[in-house]
Amino acid sequence: MKTSKPVVVEIFGQQYTLRGDADEPYVRELARYVDKKIREVAAKTKTNDLRRLAVLSAINIAHDYRRLADEQQHHQMAIRQIGRKTRDLIESIEEEFDDLHLH
Amino acid sequence: MKTSKPVVVEIFGQQYTLRGDADEPYVRELARYVDKKIREVAAKTKTNDLRRLAVLSAINIAHDYRRLADEQQHHQMAIRQIGRKTRDLIESIEEEFDDLHLH
Repeated sequence: MKTSKPVVVEIFGQQYTLRGDADEPYVRELARYVDKKIREVAAKTKTNDLRRLAVLSAINIAHDYRRLADEQQHHQMAIRQIGRKTRDLIESIEEEFDDLHLH
Repeated sequence: MKTSKPVVVEIFGQQYTLRGDADEPYVRELARYVDKKIREVAAKTKTNDLRRLAVLSAINIAHDYRRLADEQQHHQMAIRQIGRKTRDLIESIEEEFDDLHLH
């Protein structure tokens, strides 16, 4: 992830300079999200070791990512199924009414 | 993210014990993914400070998550549109053929 000009964000009390193509409000939103995730893990694990907290948070975010990716795969399967059913429906209507052509 | 029995994983040369409800192969897969992400960031930023690397990797994974979430929103809009068009199609066919009832 890159931002067009350097954006300085604060995560769990430490400053990070992020550079690249993304716009500043989006980068700040990502930083707030990661900060929130690290604070959630910190509250659960009762450690202030930012190195461990950041790695555990990265695993949690990766877990969220995977769940979303699995959901998306199910949606894509549903879309394909809807497509098949719609084609079957149109075909059966066309067979029923030989002279009917749907556009 | 929780695993049913403690799973010890290695990420960027450090061991982490993960506990909770998820199964072991899945937890190991997540750990490999985070390890890969940290190594990618390490290669780009030329630092070995795992605390910074882990935070930057968490931001990158959060960025992937957001892109996927945006994509999913577009898919859901597409599904709603397909639903509307299918209903319109069925309605127009029913209007055309008053005595035709689709099931």
